[in-house]
Amino acid sequence: MTTLIRNGTVVTATEFMAADVLIDGEKVVGIAAPGSQPWEEGADKVIDAKDRYVMPGGIDVHTHMELPFGGTYASDTFESGTRAAAWGGTTTLVDFAVQVHGERVMDGYETWMEKAEGNCAIDYGFHMIVGEVTDQSLKDMDTLMGEGVTSFKLFTAYPGVLYSDDGRIFQAMQKAAENGGTIMMHAENGMVIDVLREQAIARGETDPIYHSITRPPITEAEATHRVIAYAELAGCPLYVVHMSVKEAVAEVALARDRGSNVFGETCPQYLFLGWNNLREPDFEGAKYVCSTPVRDWEQGHQEALWKYLATNDLQLVSTDHCPFCMGDHPTLGTQKRLGEGDFTAIPNGMPGVEDRMRMIYHGAVGEGRLSLNRFVEVTSTAPAKMFGMFPQKGTIAIGSDADITIWDPNASHTMSVEHNHMDVDYCAYEGKEVVGQIELVMARGNVLISDGEYHGKPGDGRYIKRGTSQYLI
Amino acid sequence: MTTLIRNGTVVTATEFMAADVLIDGEKVVGIAAPGSQPWEEGADKVIDAKDRYVMPGGIDVHTHMELPFGGTYASDTFESGTRAAAWGGTTTLVDFAVQVHGERVMDGYETWMEKAEGNCAIDYGFHMIVGEVTDQSLKDMDTLMGEGVTSFKLFTAYPGVLYSDDGRIFQAMQKAAENGGTIMMHAENGMVIDVLREQAIARGETDPIYHSITRPPITEAEATHRVIAYAELAGCPLYVVHMSVKEAVAEVALARDRGSNVFGETCPQYLFLGWNNLREPDFEGAKYVCSTPVRDWEQGHQEALWKYLATNDLQLVSTDHCPFCMGDHPTLGTQKRLGEGDFTAIPNGMPGVEDRMRMIYHGAVGEGRLSLNRFVEVTSTAPAKMFGMFPQKGTIAIGSDADITIWDPNASHTMSVEHNHMDVDYCAYEGKEVVGQIELVMARGNVLISDGEYHGKPGDGRYIKRGTSQYLI
Amino acid sequence: MTTLIRNGTVVTATEFMAADVLIDGEKVVGIAAPGSQPWEEGADKVIDAKDRYVMPGGIDVHTHMELPFGGTYASDTFESGTRAAAWGGTTTLVDFAVQVHGERVMDGYETWMEKAEGNCAIDYGFHMIVGEVTDQSLKDMDTLMGEGVTSFKLFTAYPGVLYSDDGRIFQAMQKAAENGGTIMMHAENGMVIDVLREQAIARGETDPIYHSITRPPITEAEATHRVIAYAELAGCPLYVVHMSVKEAVAEVALARDRGSNVFGETCPQYLFLGWNNLREPDFEGAKYVCSTPVRDWEQGHQEALWKYLATNDLQLVSTDHCPFCMGDHPTLGTQKRLGEGDFTAIPNGMPGVEDRMRMIYHGAVGEGRLSLNRFVEVTSTAPAKMFGMFPQKGTIAIGSDADITIWDPNASHTMSVEHNHMDVDYCAYEGKEVVGQIELVMARGNVLISDGEYHGKPGDGRYIKRGTSQYLI
Amino acid sequence: MTTLIRNGTVVTATEFMAADVLIDGEKVVGIAAPGSQPWEEGADKVIDAKDRYVMPGGIDVHTHMELPFGGTYASDTFESGTRAAAWGGTTTLVDFAVQVHGERVMDGYETWMEKAEGNCAIDYGFHMIVGEVTDQSLKDMDTLMGEGVTSFKLFTAYPGVLYSDDGRIFQAMQKAAENGGTIMMHAENGMVIDVLREQAIARGETDPIYHSITRPPITEAEATHRVIAYAELAGCPLYVVHMSVKEAVAEVALARDRGSNVFGETCPQYLFLGWNNLREPDFEGAKYVCSTPVRDWEQGHQEALWKYLATNDLQLVSTDHCPFCMGDHPTLGTQKRLGEGDFTAIPNGMPGVEDRMRMIYHGAVGEGRLSLNRFVEVTSTAPAKMFGMFPQKGTIAIGSDADITIWDPNASHTMSVEHNHMDVDYCAYEGKEVVGQIELVMARGNVLISDGEYHGKPGDGRYIKRGTSQYLI
Repeated sequence: MTTLIRNGTVVTATEFMAADVLIDGEKVVGIAAPGSQPWEEGADKVIDAKDRYVMPGGIDVHTHMELPFGGTYASDTFESGTRAAAWGGTTTLVDFAVQVHGERVMDGYETWMEKAEGNCAIDYGFHMIVGEVTDQSLKDMDTLMGEGVTSFKLFTAYPGVLYSDDGRIFQAMQKAAENGGTIMMHAENGMVIDVLREQAIARGETDPIYHSITRPPITEAEATHRVIAYAELAGCPLYVVHMSVKEAVAEVALARDRGSNVFGETCPQYLFLGWNNLREPDFEGAKYVCSTPVRDWEQGHQEALWKYLATNDLQLVSTDHCPFCMGDHPTLGTQKRLGEGDFTAIPNGMPGVEDRMRMIYHGAVGEGRLSLNRFVEVTSTAPAKMFGMFPQKGTIAIGSDADITIWDPNASHTMSVEHNHMDVDYCAYEGKEVVGQIELVMARGNVLISDGEYHGKPGDGRYIKRGTSQYLI
Repeated sequence: MTTLIRNGTVVTATEFMAADVLIDGEKVVGIAAPGSQPWEEGADKVIDAKDRYVMPGGIDVHTHMELPFGGTYASDTFESGTRAAAWGGTTTLVDFAVQVHGERVMDGYETWMEKAEGNCAIDYGFHMIVGEVTDQSLKDMDTLMGEGVTSFKLFTAYPGVLYSDDGRIFQAMQKAAENGGTIMMHAENGMVIDVLREQAIARGETDPIYHSITRPPITEAEATHRVIAYAELAGCPLYVVHMSVKEAVAEVALARDRGSNVFGETCPQYLFLGWNNLREPDFEGAKYVCSTPVRDWEQGHQEALWKYLATNDLQLVSTDHCPFCMGDHPTLGTQKRLGEGDFTAIPNGMPGVEDRMRMIYHGAVGEGRLSLNRFVEVTSTAPAKMFGMFPQKGTIAIGSDADITIWDPNASHTMSVEHNHMDVDYCAYEGKEVVGQIELVMARGNVLISDGEYHGKPGDGRYIKRGTSQYLI
Repeated sequence: MTTLIRNGTVVTATEFMAADVLIDGEKVVGIAAPGSQPWEEGADKVIDAKDRYVMPGGIDVHTHMELPFGGTYASDTFESGTRAAAWGGTTTLVDFAVQVHGERVMDGYETWMEKAEGNCAIDYGFHMIVGEVTDQSLKDMDTLMGEGVTSFKLFTAYPGVLYSDDGRIFQAMQKAAENGGTIMMHAENGMVIDVLREQAIARGETDPIYHSITRPPITEAEATHRVIAYAELAGCPLYVVHMSVKEAVAEVALARDRGSNVFGETCPQYLFLGWNNLREPDFEGAKYVCSTPVRDWEQGHQEALWKYLATNDLQLVSTDHCPFCMGDHPTLGTQKRLGEGDFTAIPNGMPGVEDRMRMIYHGAVGEGRLSLNRFVEVTSTAPAKMFGMFPQKGTIAIGSDADITIWDPNASHTMSVEHNHMDVDYCAYEGKEVVGQIELVMARGNVLISDGEYHGKPGDGRYIKRGTSQYLI
Repeated sequence: MTTLIRNGTVVTATEFMAADVLIDGEKVVGIAAPGSQPWEEGADKVIDAKDRYVMPGGIDVHTHMELPFGGTYASDTFESGTRAAAWGGTTTLVDFAVQVHGERVMDGYETWMEKAEGNCAIDYGFHMIVGEVTDQSLKDMDTLMGEGVTSFKLFTAYPGVLYSDDGRIFQAMQKAAENGGTIMMHAENGMVIDVLREQAIARGETDPIYHSITRPPITEAEATHRVIAYAELAGCPLYVVHMSVKEAVAEVALARDRGSNVFGETCPQYLFLGWNNLREPDFEGAKYVCSTPVRDWEQGHQEALWKYLATNDLQLVSTDHCPFCMGDHPTLGTQKRLGEGDFTAIPNGMPGVEDRMRMIYHGAVGEGRLSLNRFVEVTSTAPAKMFGMFPQKGTIAIGSDADITIWDPNASHTMSVEHNHMDVDYCAYEGKEVVGQIELVMARGNVLISDGEYHGKPGDGRYIKRGTSQYLI
């Protein structure tokens, strides 16, 4: 089966070119000057992309499908979440398998593999959350490298749940230095934050806004400084997740200036949302409760994060997709409202896997924050290279998977729960008009979305054995 | 006329792919999975690139052909210099037209256009050296923008010759902020350096090594700090040329961290040469006299510059090609030896246009300093984007000029004046073994070099009207 | 002749003690527990200081009496200015002798010595402004060291008048490194500022506020960075005068962090005045025109300067006293109003020699910015040590000159031209209520001010041959 | 009883003056020009200090007498240790009372008060080590403020012993922000260090040098950065103890540049000792095992620490006196040799209370590192002001305690266990010749040491109720 995408403008991290794209089976096999090759003749399928951008499918390297958290579960299953991702122009994701205290790492890995197996609409891989660093956990990290799980996440936050102390984190870093893996860090000083949370509750400060107020920027900046220090001492690559404050990214920038393998991601919520959202009345602010929190706009974090994305001090944008319903979920029951009257009981997380590509495209093109090449890079190419999936993923090139989105730059889209397909009852960007419209989404040559219809099915997506980071210095 | 390059591995700033490349006339028109298309049939020419890298031709954005300096001229003419460039895998260069004191900018521009016209083997553009900032010069900067000269170089060094005081530099920066041009700075504190030079000579310190000793690192770092400050105040893009010390690049890195449009280049001499070379006996050190000077290895500048290249705090590598003979030049007579007994009289400059691609490839691949993608970026893609020539130049993509080099990664090459074609009697890297061998060089579809022969002729190269920088934030 | 000051609280840079102070002739000879010694008996004079602070007389190391500037002269003569200083609690000052272009340094020195000789109410010394660095000037710097002139001021501002280029400045720094002198710098990039001034005038921006707008903070910060770089290269002590912006003092702080002999002063106008003053209508803003200029409050410069004073990143407070009348001066005629309609023609300078001690005491005690010890240090002890006058000057200690002020901390004072004695027709702090009142001023044992009367006469003050800085690391 | 010290040169943090000093009972009551007052007549005692320096007695604010550690006790009791302090020119010390896990803070305080009561040769105060932060501990911090214990020490090191997690540290900081106390931090990342220690032992790296190698500089610098961050968030004064690496002090310097109440001390061992000592053969390196450890000279830490002392980025020098014998102690048995074959079992600590004044005087005067005023400041005045004992302690001034040392600057001294009086069997500076000799030590007017004899007795020293820090901005 061959497909021709003709007359489009192909955009990659580097290129911007009028070209026809020929796909044979799952792979891109040809790119040529428009109409210069007789590819239309033999093609099984011809897609006209005149006045359209033809871009690599999005890669979201930070999602939490079906994550147990705070007494409930993230409301998207691998089935619903990956389908929604496809609707949003994302054709690959990397989720987090979880080891909790008292469990073995490999058990967590197998559990998550089973959850995903046969249910995904798009290709997927896993990072491993190492919830308890033990000798066995360190050995399992080696085992996982062979399974294509080459990145390991630890937490300086959530004491008693996912928190590891600095010694345990350092041991995992040493292991990564040895086996080539990447350490991913949730960098907030959870110990100090927990003191502030208890004090706030004791003072009767229970509204959602206090979720952010009790996580002051320095708690993120300090933890970031700390994990950079020990990653440099251990000699391992470090990737800091969901960065939200300029002072923290400044630490990443300094580490990069001195040539360290230190990387950072941010998410759409930190680029577009802030305290005004958390302060929405009637508990609506709970929609935006996630950790790290959305920040005070007036401190300039958003401007700084966009700038750091432009200068490559932040390398990419993921979502930290982890949705919880505001109302009752049909099967999971009460979610966000668990925290009415006590913000510390609000499940932490937001939907986003379907929103990301549209929001970042809007920021790039609609608001002029990034070039179109850089949009492709931060949403697709960099995720692929950062986590060892390039050139199979992350670009439109000969031999690469035909993971392709076609955008109409002259159309626009209204962000809304009405248009979304995630299993959650709100959209964090409800009503926002964004430039550009995703017309078609193809994954490994297979059209998942076109003409406003979903043509895929559970199991279309395959597990990706990832290699090590392709960005190391 | 069509050409097929088949079976090669195509490398761009982003991609690494096994692919056939089809060229029609001057342009790349097709890229396809090896053998998947029947392109061989109709091709006028077929080049087999099995086990070879197929990469974009090099772009050298800092050369000085026929430059009058210190009582003589740079020994390469546009004819000899551009031909040597082709031999070295470079298919585009940007030279500097010069306005000297008392002359009009446009006169300098026209003089240099005439020098180049009909003589170049490869495509070329011009930056403009503004030697005297006057009201007329500022107007001429606007005029030149329309001529495709979109970058203007000023000097904080060479008082009385090319030096502009800070006020004049600032005026040029304001003009660039207005018309979209880029200000290029030779950043050394020439005032302080001249004091040190006079004092050294007075003390009898006349050997070539004193050329570097009298230009201490802080004189480059301070001037870099200063021009960044005023570029930020004026709001113009700034590009610092031939950066040689880590402290100076640290200033660029900090400016980039805060989101400023500040860029820097380095050159092979700063990455490979140092005081050991300047100290070669019998005046041999004069070979390496250029400004900024090569530096003391022990201070770690080389390591730092490679690291800054890897992290994109330095964006690209050019040559500052400006050769002078050690012995008598047939027509120009005494050159380097003008400075025997007085290093201040040694013409400043080194050959390099033919050496750059090989040396940087060796640093990248042979010494593991840069990825192959990054090699392509710093030698071709970034120069093209920095100076407004992309996507015509700087990549292998549909619609781009077919400026292509074919490298044998399994062969090696001995750097030597014996193998070189520049009109100069020495090679700065004499005897150095480098990995990789350039087998074929094509410019706009025309094979200039193959089978160890040069097939081009003067006038093959065309003037490029450049646009503004494509890297602005 | 002996004098006893009894029952007071003696405050020095270190101490805070209830004590009697015995003075014999010009010197302090005894300090004792109140009433413990029978000093009252033999004393020629007894001053009761119950409930009073007994503190060292102020030292103002930056004044410009009778300075020719902008077509007129600073309105205070050595006679009127030093008398006003005494009224304001200052018992020593260091003025600037001036070499202008085309004149010899020693001639300037002698001219200023003659101006002061026999006219001063208080002791005085001189710094030397080196307006033109020549071989002869450098030799004269050595000569002046022997005359007790151990500090040499140069300018990066005022091109064509007092400006020296970086090479000349560096030569003077080398000389100071050799002879032990201190280089004082007026650090603003005058070249860039002059461009901005011309452009402002061309746009019709002629009001006093544009004096500050055309001297943006970066022009001071950059010049400060630059002169620090070259002082470190030369190896000489550096003292930056009249610092007004936080970014510039941050450069001093960094230099001090790395152990360099770099120092900075600020003045009351930068601690208390700002754009609101420059914007006073009807040309009243001209009162506050001085260089460096008073700054935009909203940028936080004042807060930062007070903080830097507290942390010793700024070492002391001087005045840059250089008054010009708003109305016609009896003998000098039009002064500030020379610049009506053209801010660039407003004579640069403000009165302050009489205001300094009161304003800084108020900032320290009234606003809680500094401890009382630190008040003494920044107004007296540090000036004495910085410029080689300690322990003769700058403290109350055995063997030191009896330069003493007695303050009533429970009284207050209204700053006003009505109460002042400087030969100028306005007070920059008109109407401001300050805590504390100076009741008595004694210089070398001689009561100059008491009971609201001046008891001194011209010639009371003697020339001080100063030594080198006592703060060098 | 009155004492006259005549003809000496009195040196304080500010002054340097030829003066007689009159003491009445415990206090200084008069200072006068030599011979100018008839004080000799009525004096009970006359001490001639011709050609001698008369300086304030030393104050050592970091000692651990009788400290239980690692299965033994510091070998000096309050009796032996305070007597040795007097021999070494120190007339006041502040020791650490200790709360251990499971005990109440007030119990620890009372235990230490009892240990000291009636046994001390010199005046003494206490800091409180808060080993477990509980609600009760926080209340006890308030109680202790009223007892004159105004400083509270916590540890980021020694997990399971004295370590507090960041949340507990932050709570103590909040309490200090509220009650005015100072938080003292032992800042090393003990969690990471413990991993490195275990790994070293597992590799058979058991010699004393590994004590330092397993505590790399970044573990101190990071912890310092961290506690500064949270002290700034809490708004409390912070004092970092026994700083040993330049990178850590750089963090203090930056905090001070931004105006925070952050302070640091260093100790003689970091200024004079290093890896060469730890590497002494036959387990002799164990003498120098203390935490933070002595460092690698070649990294420039010593030079940097001296420089930071000079620039006031470090405020003072204490000892961390905590001696353990190399051979068997008569009553305590095996001490340092507990760690033969396992450096982690070596009791951490060194003698120093008797050595400090001589070593720092030598560094200041003999090596030219500090002025004599600064010597007095870092060894006496700053300790007094930092910990709320000024002006009773820390200077020679009217009304201050007559704590005085008389030094012969023309004599010298050989550091040796032979000359020492501490209850320990080695001197860390054995054989070192230092300039200057302490001839006489007086505490509250009472001569403790003269003519090479000790004239004091246990109980001479009294408990000092301290106030809050007198250095806050």
